[in-house]
Amino acid sequence: MSNTPLFVGLDVGGTTMKAGVVDDAGRPLANVSLPTEAHRGQEFGLGRMCETIREAIRAAKVRPEQIAAIGVATPGTMDIPNGIILDPPNLKPWQNVPVRRHVQDEFGLPTAFQNDANAAALGEYWVGAGRGHRSMVLFTLGTGVGGGIILGGGQILEGENSAGGEVGHIKVECSRPRICGCGRKGCLEAYASATAVVKRTQERLEENGVHSALHDLPVAAEGMTARDIFAAAAAGDELATKIVEETAFYLAVGTMNLMHVIDPQMVVFGGGMTAAGEAFLERIRHHVREMVFPVLAEKTKICYAQLGGDAGFIGAAACGRALAAAALTPLPPR
Amino acid sequence: MSNTPLFVGLDVGGTTMKAGVVDDAGRPLANVSLPTEAHRGQEFGLGRMCETIREAIRAAKVRPEQIAAIGVATPGTMDIPNGIILDPPNLKPWQNVPVRRHVQDEFGLPTAFQNDANAAALGEYWVGAGRGHRSMVLFTLGTGVGGGIILGGGQILEGENSAGGEVGHIKVECSRPRICGCGRKGCLEAYASATAVVKRTQERLEENGVHSALHDLPVAAEGMTARDIFAAAAAGDELATKIVEETAFYLAVGTMNLMHVIDPQMVVFGGGMTAAGEAFLERIRHHVREMVFPVLAEKTKICYAQLGGDAGFIGAAACGRALAAAALTPLPPR
Repeated sequence: MSNTPLFVGLDVGGTTMKAGVVDDAGRPLANVSLPTEAHRGQEFGLGRMCETIREAIRAAKVRPEQIAAIGVATPGTMDIPNGIILDPPNLKPWQNVPVRRHVQDEFGLPTAFQNDANAAALGEYWVGAGRGHRSMVLFTLGTGVGGGIILGGGQILEGENSAGGEVGHIKVECSRPRICGCGRKGCLEAYASATAVVKRTQERLEENGVHSALHDLPVAAEGMTARDIFAAAAAGDELATKIVEETAFYLAVGTMNLMHVIDPQMVVFGGGMTAAGEAFLERIRHHVREMVFPVLAEKTKICYAQLGGDAGFIGAAACGRALAAAALTPLPPR
Repeated sequence: MSNTPLFVGLDVGGTTMKAGVVDDAGRPLANVSLPTEAHRGQEFGLGRMCETIREAIRAAKVRPEQIAAIGVATPGTMDIPNGIILDPPNLKPWQNVPVRRHVQDEFGLPTAFQNDANAAALGEYWVGAGRGHRSMVLFTLGTGVGGGIILGGGQILEGENSAGGEVGHIKVECSRPRICGCGRKGCLEAYASATAVVKRTQERLEENGVHSALHDLPVAAEGMTARDIFAAAAAGDELATKIVEETAFYLAVGTMNLMHVIDPQMVVFGGGMTAAGEAFLERIRHHVREMVFPVLAEKTKICYAQLGGDAGFIGAAACGRALAAAALTPLPPR
C-alpha cells in the first residue's frame, strides 16, 4: 500500500449516507452506506456521519494516518462557507447543524463542506464525464431536478448565499405554469423531474378518450414510476412517447438557458432518470440544437454522467482534497 | 498631473463608438464619441477605433506615455480570448475583425478585448452600482436585453465560447412563446426589451374594445416608444400600467432565474429603460421577492446602474487595467 495521500468523502442523503475513501487520482478504494435516520435527530446524525466515515476507512483497509482530508456533502438548505446545514427539507428535524466543525474536531483533519449536487458535479468533473474538460454544468434528474456548476479550473459556483446552481428552479413557463414541489410556479423541476413525469402522465391518463398501455399497468402500492413511462415509450405507446418527448424538450430548455448564461464546455445529466438511455439523451440534444446559439449547438458537449451514485462521495472527497491542497500551498513572499 | 498609470477604454456600438481615459481609481478624465459608420467596412472601422482612442487621449490632455493599457469592447458575436469580432449583427458587414491585434500593434500597449455588455458590467462593478460588492449580474434594457456576469473578485463570466451572460436569451415561456428578435421563441428579450414593450402595447391597442390614452398619441415618424408607454402608465392609463407591470414581472423572472443559477450579491439594471425610474424598479423587486428563494429575497440587492452610457468604456478600461496588472505581477518563486 502506497503512502500517497487519501481522502474520505461523505455524501449524506435523506435515506442513506455513503462514505468512501478516494486516492489522489480520484479512484475509490471502498465505500460503505448506512441509513441516515434523520428522524433520530441531529446529534445522532452527526454521530452517524463520523461512524460512516470510520467504516469507510476500515473497509478500505488503510491506516487512518493516510487520510489527508475529509469532505462532507449534504442536501440544502445550507451555509457552505461556515459548514452548516440550515433547514433541509430532506433531513427533518435537523436545523443549524455545524457539520464541518463537528467532523473536523472528531477526526482532527481538514474538513470541507459542500452542497451534495455541487459535490456530485465536482466528482463527475474530476474523474467522470467531465474528466479532461474545463467547465461543466450538471443536471441531476431524480425526484427533483438538482445541479451543480463547475467553472474553469474546477471552481464550484457556490453563490453568495450557497444557492448557486439551483438549476431545477429556473422558471421556464410563466403562462399557465405547473406548480413545483418547492411551491413555486413554472420551475424546470415541475416538468422534468421523475416525479413530474409521473404526474404529467397521470393527468393525461385521466383525460377522456386517452388510450395508452399505461392504463393496463399492474400498478403496485407505490404507483407508476418514470421507468414505467420510459419503458412504455420504448415499446411504442403514443402517450408515453409524447410525455418523454416533452420531458426532453423541457430539459433542452433548461440546458439552453444554462448554456446562454454559463456557456460551459459540457452539460452532463445524472440521476435515476438517465436509465432512459441514449435515445432520450439524443432527443434532448436534438431540441438543444434546434434552439441554442449556433456556435454552442456546434461546440458544447451534452452527455450522461458516469459515476452513478458514487459521484457525491467522490466529489466530497475532491472538496477535501482541494482544501488540503490550499492549506499546503506556501504563502507568497512578502 | 500625476504619474499614476492611466487606461483607455473604447466602447464600440452600432451607431457610435466612445473612448475615454480612466485613471487607476476608475475616474474618467475625458471621453469622446465618433460615428462608427460600420457600412464603410472593417478596415475603416479599425482606423476609426484608433482615431477615437487618440482623440480621447488628446481630450484628456495627458501624455501618451502615461497610458498603461487599452481595453476595447464590442458587440457580439466574438471570440474574446483571441480578440476577434466574428459576425456581429450590429456592425454589418464586418466579419472576423482582429481588433485586439490591430489596436495593440498600433499603440504598442497591452490591449484587452471584451464583449460590450460584459465590459459595462465590469464598469458598474468597479466604480458604479457594484462598487464594494463581490459579485453582480447586470441586465441592460434597451432595444434588446443584454447582460454581463461578474463573479467574486471581479472575474467576468466569459464562457467557453464567449457566450456567457447572454441573459436576454434565456427562455421564460414555452407555451405560446413570443418570437424574439434573435429568431428564437420565448426569450426574456421578447418580453422585456424596450422594443418588446412597444410591440406588446401595439398588439393590445389593436384589440377590439381597448381604451387607452396611447391611442391619442401624436405618433411621430419613428412611432411609439417605451418612454411614451411608461409616461402613460405614470399618468394612470390602464393599458400602459398593465404592460409596465407585466414587463416588471418578466424582468423579475429573469432576475430570479439568474439568482437561482449564479446567486450574485446584487442584480443591476442598466440601459435606456431605467428612465422608468424607481417605481418600476420597485415593481421588479416586488415580483422577485414573491418568487425567489427566501434567503435570496432577503439578501440580494436589486438596483439601477449608475454610470449610464459611460459604463462600457470605463469597463473596457478596467479590462485593460486587469491585463496590465496581470502582466506586471511577478512570477511565483520556483
